[in-house]
Amino acid sequence: MSAPTEAGRFITLEGIEGAGKSTQVERLAGALRAQGRRVITTREPGGAPIAEHIRELLLDPEHGAMCESAELLLMFAARAEHLDKTIRPALEAGVWVICDRFTDATYAYQGGGRGLDVAPIATLERLVQGALRPDLTLVFDLPPAQGLARARARAGAADRFERETLRFFEAVRSVYLTRAATMPERYRVIDAAAPLASVSAEIERLAVELHETLGAGR
Amino acid sequence: MSAPTEAGRFITLEGIEGAGKSTQVERLAGALRAQGRRVITTREPGGAPIAEHIRELLLDPEHGAMCESAELLLMFAARAEHLDKTIRPALEAGVWVICDRFTDATYAYQGGGRGLDVAPIATLERLVQGALRPDLTLVFDLPPAQGLARARARAGAADRFERETLRFFEAVRSVYLTRAATMPERYRVIDAAAPLASVSAEIERLAVELHETLGAGR
Repeated sequence: MSAPTEAGRFITLEGIEGAGKSTQVERLAGALRAQGRRVITTREPGGAPIAEHIRELLLDPEHGAMCESAELLLMFAARAEHLDKTIRPALEAGVWVICDRFTDATYAYQGGGRGLDVAPIATLERLVQGALRPDLTLVFDLPPAQGLARARARAGAADRFERETLRFFEAVRSVYLTRAATMPERYRVIDAAAPLASVSAEIERLAVELHETLGAGR
Repeated sequence: MSAPTEAGRFITLEGIEGAGKSTQVERLAGALRAQGRRVITTREPGGAPIAEHIRELLLDPEHGAMCESAELLLMFAARAEHLDKTIRPALEAGVWVICDRFTDATYAYQGGGRGLDVAPIATLERLVQGALRPDLTLVFDLPPAQGLARARARAGAADRFERETLRFFEAVRSVYLTRAATMPERYRVIDAAAPLASVSAEIERLAVELHETLGAGR
């Protein structure tokens, strides 16, 4: 009798615009693959076909007047599809999943940024995820003014979230840091204001560490 | 000091495919307008620009594999926009709103048809609607085999819901009738298997009655 496949690990990267998450998602995946792990990278909102359609609705700058509860429900609708089609099947097959934003972003953006109550977010989290939570969440932290300057230097028009104010992103950052402080066993805060080479080196070291610790049989 | 505008009334029409709701929505609106009421007609899912985009996602036959919780959340996301942009502003301005399907359809289709638990539907109803419920719901009732035969005789390809089985629609019908029986003060069951002229006459009579009863100051 062969042993059942050990479930993959679920790692999420969080942070405001311009924190460098997207670059480090790929670096972390590459470093884990170099150690023999099977890894997929994905993102939210999106990460599955119907979820990507919902992402388009959410980010379209022409949908600026979307009401807050519709935004919240669309986020979780996309998440339900993402979990059903991409994340859960990978984890069950023993593949590690590295995801650019997940439910912490809902607490930070819709809860902190938009000022929605936490209770309905927690209700939707239980409804859509059941008991599933990330094994580890990396919070890429930097002052919003610095992050926004970086984001605005990139090519392309600002999406519906990138058009928000500095105060909005201060509230988002505050929620990320509070959650990390409250549940230190699940979070690690990365100083994303440091030079890129330094952040990248930290991610490489982290991958070695995770391969040993998070990768050890449960 | 002038009196504050009296709120409009909110009337929903429910029933399976082929029950003739869409025709009677317009007939009821016309009959109420003939008595001097200001009336708008609308529909779910949809009824506001972003909600209509969500409708496209929900009805697209290519999205057959959408998971049940995503479908439920998309329905309520569309409803949140519909309430925010169309229904609440009209009611507050004293306009009567006649809507082709509303939350009873979620209980019937996602709860009855798909077999989802009622609890999350009730949670989302409270989250999105607060205390708002229709003043009156007309259930157009007929045997599903008859409704589907009518729906299939119409031009156009079947949408994602019209492709469901007879058993699915039997479960939908059962939820509608149970809800009507449990809350008789809010529901009226219309025999939609009767000839069109007879159903139309009943709607005309109903409009006169509603103008008097539902339209009396609260």
